[in-house]
Amino acid sequence: MVRVLLLGQGYAASVFAWGLARLKKGLMEPWGIPLAKVDFGVPIEKLEVVASVDVDAGKVGKSLYEVVERYGLEPEPELKSVTVAPGLKLSSTPSYIKTEALDEGRPLEDALVKFEELIDDANPDVAIDVTTTARTSPLYTWEEVEEAALRGSLPHPQAYAYLFLKRDSVAYVNLQPAHVACSPAFVDRALRSGSLVLGDDGATGATPLTIDIAEHLAERGRKVLSVAQFNIGGNSDFLSLIEPDRNRAKEETKSGFLEDVLGYEPPHFIKPTGYLEPLGDKKFVAMHIQWITFGGFTDELIVNMRINDSPALAGYMVDLARLAYASLRGGMYGTVPEINAFYMKRPGPLNLKRKSKIAAYQDLLAFVHKLGKREPHSLNLKALSSEPVTR
Amino acid sequence: MVRVLLLGQGYAASVFAWGLARLKKGLMEPWGIPLAKVDFGVPIEKLEVVASVDVDAGKVGKSLYEVVERYGLEPEPELKSVTVAPGLKLSSTPSYIKTEALDEGRPLEDALVKFEELIDDANPDVAIDVTTTARTSPLYTWEEVEEAALRGSLPHPQAYAYLFLKRDSVAYVNLQPAHVACSPAFVDRALRSGSLVLGDDGATGATPLTIDIAEHLAERGRKVLSVAQFNIGGNSDFLSLIEPDRNRAKEETKSGFLEDVLGYEPPHFIKPTGYLEPLGDKKFVAMHIQWITFGGFTDELIVNMRINDSPALAGYMVDLARLAYASLRGGMYGTVPEINAFYMKRPGPLNLKRKSKIAAYQDLLAFVHKLGKREPHSLNLKALSSEPVTR
Amino acid sequence: MVRVLLLGQGYAASVFAWGLARLKKGLMEPWGIPLAKVDFGVPIEKLEVVASVDVDAGKVGKSLYEVVERYGLEPEPELKSVTVAPGLKLSSTPSYIKTEALDEGRPLEDALVKFEELIDDANPDVAIDVTTTARTSPLYTWEEVEEAALRGSLPHPQAYAYLFLKRDSVAYVNLQPAHVACSPAFVDRALRSGSLVLGDDGATGATPLTIDIAEHLAERGRKVLSVAQFNIGGNSDFLSLIEPDRNRAKEETKSGFLEDVLGYEPPHFIKPTGYLEPLGDKKFVAMHIQWITFGGFTDELIVNMRINDSPALAGYMVDLARLAYASLRGGMYGTVPEINAFYMKRPGPLNLKRKSKIAAYQDLLAFVHKLGKREPHSLNLKALSSEPVTR
Amino acid sequence: MVRVLLLGQGYAASVFAWGLARLKKGLMEPWGIPLAKVDFGVPIEKLEVVASVDVDAGKVGKSLYEVVERYGLEPEPELKSVTVAPGLKLSSTPSYIKTEALDEGRPLEDALVKFEELIDDANPDVAIDVTTTARTSPLYTWEEVEEAALRGSLPHPQAYAYLFLKRDSVAYVNLQPAHVACSPAFVDRALRSGSLVLGDDGATGATPLTIDIAEHLAERGRKVLSVAQFNIGGNSDFLSLIEPDRNRAKEETKSGFLEDVLGYEPPHFIKPTGYLEPLGDKKFVAMHIQWITFGGFTDELIVNMRINDSPALAGYMVDLARLAYASLRGGMYGTVPEINAFYMKRPGPLNLKRKSKIAAYQDLLAFVHKLGKREPHSLNLKALSSEPVTR
Repeated sequence: MVRVLLLGQGYAASVFAWGLARLKKGLMEPWGIPLAKVDFGVPIEKLEVVASVDVDAGKVGKSLYEVVERYGLEPEPELKSVTVAPGLKLSSTPSYIKTEALDEGRPLEDALVKFEELIDDANPDVAIDVTTTARTSPLYTWEEVEEAALRGSLPHPQAYAYLFLKRDSVAYVNLQPAHVACSPAFVDRALRSGSLVLGDDGATGATPLTIDIAEHLAERGRKVLSVAQFNIGGNSDFLSLIEPDRNRAKEETKSGFLEDVLGYEPPHFIKPTGYLEPLGDKKFVAMHIQWITFGGFTDELIVNMRINDSPALAGYMVDLARLAYASLRGGMYGTVPEINAFYMKRPGPLNLKRKSKIAAYQDLLAFVHKLGKREPHSLNLKALSSEPVTR
Repeated sequence: MVRVLLLGQGYAASVFAWGLARLKKGLMEPWGIPLAKVDFGVPIEKLEVVASVDVDAGKVGKSLYEVVERYGLEPEPELKSVTVAPGLKLSSTPSYIKTEALDEGRPLEDALVKFEELIDDANPDVAIDVTTTARTSPLYTWEEVEEAALRGSLPHPQAYAYLFLKRDSVAYVNLQPAHVACSPAFVDRALRSGSLVLGDDGATGATPLTIDIAEHLAERGRKVLSVAQFNIGGNSDFLSLIEPDRNRAKEETKSGFLEDVLGYEPPHFIKPTGYLEPLGDKKFVAMHIQWITFGGFTDELIVNMRINDSPALAGYMVDLARLAYASLRGGMYGTVPEINAFYMKRPGPLNLKRKSKIAAYQDLLAFVHKLGKREPHSLNLKALSSEPVTR
Repeated sequence: MVRVLLLGQGYAASVFAWGLARLKKGLMEPWGIPLAKVDFGVPIEKLEVVASVDVDAGKVGKSLYEVVERYGLEPEPELKSVTVAPGLKLSSTPSYIKTEALDEGRPLEDALVKFEELIDDANPDVAIDVTTTARTSPLYTWEEVEEAALRGSLPHPQAYAYLFLKRDSVAYVNLQPAHVACSPAFVDRALRSGSLVLGDDGATGATPLTIDIAEHLAERGRKVLSVAQFNIGGNSDFLSLIEPDRNRAKEETKSGFLEDVLGYEPPHFIKPTGYLEPLGDKKFVAMHIQWITFGGFTDELIVNMRINDSPALAGYMVDLARLAYASLRGGMYGTVPEINAFYMKRPGPLNLKRKSKIAAYQDLLAFVHKLGKREPHSLNLKALSSEPVTR
Repeated sequence: MVRVLLLGQGYAASVFAWGLARLKKGLMEPWGIPLAKVDFGVPIEKLEVVASVDVDAGKVGKSLYEVVERYGLEPEPELKSVTVAPGLKLSSTPSYIKTEALDEGRPLEDALVKFEELIDDANPDVAIDVTTTARTSPLYTWEEVEEAALRGSLPHPQAYAYLFLKRDSVAYVNLQPAHVACSPAFVDRALRSGSLVLGDDGATGATPLTIDIAEHLAERGRKVLSVAQFNIGGNSDFLSLIEPDRNRAKEETKSGFLEDVLGYEPPHFIKPTGYLEPLGDKKFVAMHIQWITFGGFTDELIVNMRINDSPALAGYMVDLARLAYASLRGGMYGTVPEINAFYMKRPGPLNLKRKSKIAAYQDLLAFVHKLGKREPHSLNLKALSSEPVTR
């Protein structure tokens, strides 16, 4: 059994828990899980949600059964066994959320201790952060991390990463834009303590498609003149992105790939654009790309999408929980660029050159192929990219 | 110098000749040529158009300078040196074209002899077929080819292929939907006579993008529910596709990839849809794809494009002339699946399993890398796929 | 009570019957009914489906409850009271339908008598034709109609119209492309026999929007260069349009408006394009319009839609049943251009100049306003357009 | 001759001046001018640009010939006769513009006097404001206007309006989002001094189409669930909208119509979204609308456009100059809602209920019809809406 702890019991985590229960009972097909049909020793059925953390007062104390139901999904009885525990709100939780958190009415120091007890009790193999977007900077040394954590100045995703990576032999997956796998401090720590960090920011939705279209154009020698990409949705992720800082955090992970893929950076406008409640979790994306083709003629491409945001991420979570567990068991410490490059918008480690997702997928398959053949703990390969990272 | 003969002096061949002249004089950037920046021993500047063939009475006897001008392009003086020679209309040339052809007012036998004299005079290294679409079937033996050619029952693209491949050591590139590289008879002949056939049907426009989007979805484990793709344009290619047989020929090369890429064949409607004169060569494409994502939710993708059809193909022609020449010089006889797989809609040899264009590009780069390092004629590798081809 | 007879118990008629039942019980809002909030003396609640006719062997003999359920709608118990009766298949019913019809195993003459008995029994105030598209020509004299009907050479929609208009004081609504309100023979007959014919071809979906966009452009003095409009769907209507004749019938009613609205006929391609089963009743529409604006610059507009075809028509059926009844009661015989112009693609009478739907709506409101104030049968106005209609 | 003075010699004013010169010489067709073919006594040829004002140091002192050329248009020699004069920058001109203005190096009082001398010299019949967007509030009394103008606290469009309306018998057209025709102070003043104010904010681009689509949906009884509309362009208008205050000014005029047309205000996101230089003046618009149709089903509409922003406005300027002149000559003082309602995004006077543009066009035609039949100055009708306007 692979014990999974969820940080942030939003719609993505809820679809994940709900879908996993249904998959195990054969009630649904494993569509939307990239490696569903690839065997690397950790079948989907082995995954088990053992704990869930949130700071939304409407969720804390509720069972996953109740939370899932509130999202309009028909819950499986198994979901009654996990209750949402209170997490840390710190200063980075959006102000519009009515919170119930460990660091309310209690000194920070005590709150951190409480949270570590929670980890002890849950004893997870893999923790997955799908909390609300927070804007962060990369962290370079463990001392810096520790100091900021204790001072209460770390945004919540980095604080959570700190609390898990204090321990040994943990697999930690960060699916939001915060710098975790892109913080050398966390990757170094993981490398030294037999842990693994994957991240950052799950690449679902429009960004991975835009990357692959950019690759498609680059391969045909076309000169991209401009890229405009709008995103609008009605889920709490889009609501949180109304705050300029969170929006900027997202914008940064969404547009960094163009230069890496094209070899130059075309003028572009790529950002989450707005919140529109009736769109719900099925966001609307509009994209315009124009380029020069042979002879100097200009072509145009427009893409429009309606995409279920959270289910796409939930499908990735299934793979990432399996991959994180298998990699750690296979002795991969630090981080695994081959996993990050496919699943993430800003793949760690910091400054990793991005490639098209279709190319990254080939690398992922090669990596997984090796992983599948490896005896647990037989090797102790350093997976960390060897490029020196400097501030 | 690489001597290029053009079959069909339409807009694609005209943009090619015009663009090549401009490229050589540094008047334009090599955008739209996939391998413009890849050195495999045949620089673009080495290409030279030495002959041109057409059956349009309005073009035969005119210089390329005049033809290019008629297409609204500002021609370079160098284009005056090549005059369009009359070709073979046979029974497959569209009836709405006012023709001037070798097989008008002359027995077929004599017309074929005349055409062979034309080839003798031009002495091309590479011939490229960009004539009007004709519907064909694969041809399996050289005897069958020869008989049908002499009887006059071969559609023009196969007749041209026959007349070139009767000779030794020629490179022949077929960019229209006819079965040439997908006719075992032609590939076998080329293999035995030190020649090379590339084809079939240049993969510009919406089809290669659709393939790569299909690959993108497949890699994420999504279940494609349906694909609709409409194409409408105002160039003579679209005009010819109003005839049901030509339309079907095109439809066949446009939709065969889905099963190879996805592993199943989703319901689809993919065809050239109509002719609308004011759109000109810049066709309009509309595409709708829907799929199931994790948890059974349905996503939707809509793509709209305005694409300059002929310039895209002209850019490919630059590469294909270079690649055909380099491959033949490098001793590659028969056909080269690695080239076809990237540049063609129905890549030869017959029944070659299709892959995504982004994956094919990786294979192409690897092939070209080897090619670049090879001494001319040092090897005599059979490039033909070794899968047995049966009727 | 307004007694409604349905010809063709497909999805549109089923959504109509189902929705009407729900509206009466306050289970749904009257969205999608253009005049829901306009009072002209016939409230929605007065409508009652009293009979239903079809030739699909899978429907004949079933109750509307069962048919509605088969379409995936949750039926109301009231729908059990109406059973689908067999109609006339004639030679115009698509061959892929397994039929059960009055004219199977029985001379045509007898079948017609049987059908008239059915009308006698149902005694409807309004009959609505929502059968499968058939291609027809306008009919000019009642003798011509009668002869062809008895010979069995009338397509089914005109045969049905004949059988109803043989009677006096009936209101007949034709919602498919056949020429009924655009057949002078039917309108003349109605005028002379105190009956009313409305039609032809319900203007839901892309066509009315295209008309209004054309008007929008015309009002700004823009020169439309081209219009391309594709439609693809997965309901039985699209399936039937695969047959070229039906397709042409539809194409004719879809594109005739451009010249009337713009003052000139721009090059256009407007037709139902294909059948793609997974799209179901929610068709996909793609449209491209380009025009010249001030200074000679070219603008472009692309519209994509997912439209529930049958519910849109069902909403119109609610209004048309009410309007037909109210008009007839108000003494409007022949046809009513003000109604047709808004609700129909090819509004009768024959050769009526089309106008934008937004303008037609103003005329409709004015007409309805007068209608609302009129005493039943107080007037005997000829509603028929007075323009002479010649062959 | 109708003497026209241009405020803001940007691309719109330049296309206007250039196009007018070409129209007069028969070098282009009058496409894009809504009333080009409607005769109301002021033919296009009568218009004459007599003066131009700007604060861009790169334009002041240049002839229109030079300015037009700089915009990439081939200028007519006639344009040499008008030189751009320096205007007032005040505090509302964007900071990124290198300015040359009357209020630089000179007390405001003197600058205002200078500007009035400029008006004296030009002696225009019609002044048209197409300067950069500024955010304003409605102004209610002339005293308030005068005080703020002398204090230098009026944004430039209101300052210009003040300086013109100090005079008698002027026609003033405001095409930017500032409150001019929506300031009771200006309309009252115009009414009392025999002047006319038209405005505010020219309704080109996506907004009028959105209004007409909303009307189209409303007429069919559909319930609009949400409207998202994105605009991105590369002209200086979009550049200026990066500043949040200007953006908000634009947003306000773009979205106010929904409630007036639909009868309720659906959730919406309608704003200028960003600046992307390579798009130039041909902006990209993406729009998503979803609604409930009969039976509770949801439909979706996506619109994408490439629209030449400034030429569309230039075409309106031709009409507005003619209409303003004709109205004033016909004795229409204050403002004319029938003109504003069609041509403007926020038609004056303040709080005028908006209607669909297609309906407004009918009213405009009726108004123009009356205007065409009127003797100059024969009447002295008050055109001002009689609704009392209170703060």
